[in-house]
Amino acid sequence: MILVNGVANAMVHPADRGLSYGDGVFRTLLLRDAFNANWRRQYAKLASDCARLGIICPDMAVFEQDFTQLDANENAGVLKLVVTRGAGQRGYAMHQPISPTRIVSTAPLPVYPSQCDVDGVMVYVCQLRLSRQPLLAGIKHLNRLENVLARSEWQDPDIMEGLLQDDTGHVIGGTMTNLFAVRGHQLFTPDLSNSGIAGVTRERILAIAVKLGLSIKISQLSLSDIFEADEVMLCNSVIGIWQVRELGQKQWQKGHYVALLRSLLEADND
Amino acid sequence: MILVNGVANAMVHPADRGLSYGDGVFRTLLLRDAFNANWRRQYAKLASDCARLGIICPDMAVFEQDFTQLDANENAGVLKLVVTRGAGQRGYAMHQPISPTRIVSTAPLPVYPSQCDVDGVMVYVCQLRLSRQPLLAGIKHLNRLENVLARSEWQDPDIMEGLLQDDTGHVIGGTMTNLFAVRGHQLFTPDLSNSGIAGVTRERILAIAVKLGLSIKISQLSLSDIFEADEVMLCNSVIGIWQVRELGQKQWQKGHYVALLRSLLEADND
Repeated sequence: MILVNGVANAMVHPADRGLSYGDGVFRTLLLRDAFNANWRRQYAKLASDCARLGIICPDMAVFEQDFTQLDANENAGVLKLVVTRGAGQRGYAMHQPISPTRIVSTAPLPVYPSQCDVDGVMVYVCQLRLSRQPLLAGIKHLNRLENVLARSEWQDPDIMEGLLQDDTGHVIGGTMTNLFAVRGHQLFTPDLSNSGIAGVTRERILAIAVKLGLSIKISQLSLSDIFEADEVMLCNSVIGIWQVRELGQKQWQKGHYVALLRSLLEADND
Repeated sequence: MILVNGVANAMVHPADRGLSYGDGVFRTLLLRDAFNANWRRQYAKLASDCARLGIICPDMAVFEQDFTQLDANENAGVLKLVVTRGAGQRGYAMHQPISPTRIVSTAPLPVYPSQCDVDGVMVYVCQLRLSRQPLLAGIKHLNRLENVLARSEWQDPDIMEGLLQDDTGHVIGGTMTNLFAVRGHQLFTPDLSNSGIAGVTRERILAIAVKLGLSIKISQLSLSDIFEADEVMLCNSVIGIWQVRELGQKQWQKGHYVALLRSLLEADND
């Protein structure tokens, strides 16, 4: 099911700035999370990303109206929300306020091997180095060619994710995931001031860690920091948490914190 | 007039990767340049940009077939060509080859004050610093949020263009133009290995300069190099060449090389 500005199976104008310039933002979440407490968090992040780009974000209620048109049988699926600046004149300038374009679409849940949740995943270190742009960092915007190129580096179906570093060698996350590492009783996650997407699941895990009283460090992490971690995990709104089982020559056993954080994330619908 | 895959006034599928990820490339040219010798250069650059991203570029003849549908009365207009990787499954991966999406559209010529060509233009130095990504540099791809943000920095209609530096302070060009500077009898233009778009008009000017026997230097240029130049000019396929008349506190008189290169560019249809 695809809704464009609330209209089922509609199409997008070829002069939409989302297409011309990637001038827009998006969210990918479990369909059920549009109908529980996570929706507020997802909307807040969508609105905040729009605000950073000066895009008018449709009201929460407008999306909720769209959701009433979705097929309840698809409840186990993935929901994607896109907001673009809208269809505009030629050229980069925004001459007058234009009406944003809103795309709501559902897709089946991706099928991952069940071992991903049980034993963890094999991860590849991407060759591509992310560029650094503080004005765009953290935003889930539509300029994602770096992710596309990074994801094209491997075809091996046993590799579930690629690890990305920026051009100074700091680890930023996966092509579609945020990253956490545990060492001792401290939880680390990369600083995303210059690159990467600050996802909602990352935010939820940080909030859970605060409640647990874990020591949290948001900082620049090198690949050696990752190799020296006791546990490494990847997260996003669709997969939840995957432990990294294998990265290059390094292998990890099942981790205590991965299991704890995963069970708390599943229980958390505040 | 807009053609999507050859169909007039068609729309674009909301799951097109051009919209989802900015996964595509484009060209902007004078409509008349689709019917003269410049078309070969424009197509060559389009095909080369597609090749760098692994996108299937439609054949030259396919575009030429599209052009037969264009309104000859619009001959003084602007032509935009977009090629995206096509409509695909959710996710960054490209699971199987997909058919590219081709968008051909025309628009009226932008109206610039006639002094732009006669006296030159006032240029603003943008605050935004371009990120560096060698895998994407030079390509006219659809990830253009940096250009959008840079262009939003000024509203003054007397300022015709914004000058962009990368995050190490090297001048890359304008938001919609390439840059040349002249000092003595030497022609300088920024090295675009890490940022920026290598435009067709830049390439044409370099070819003309070679024929003229000018000394050419493609190198890293600082803002001081620009301020110390005898002449500074901006170019693209729509405006041709504009001399920079004013940049910050610095002003320039009408230049010899600007006039020479402009007349040769206009005469050049090889």
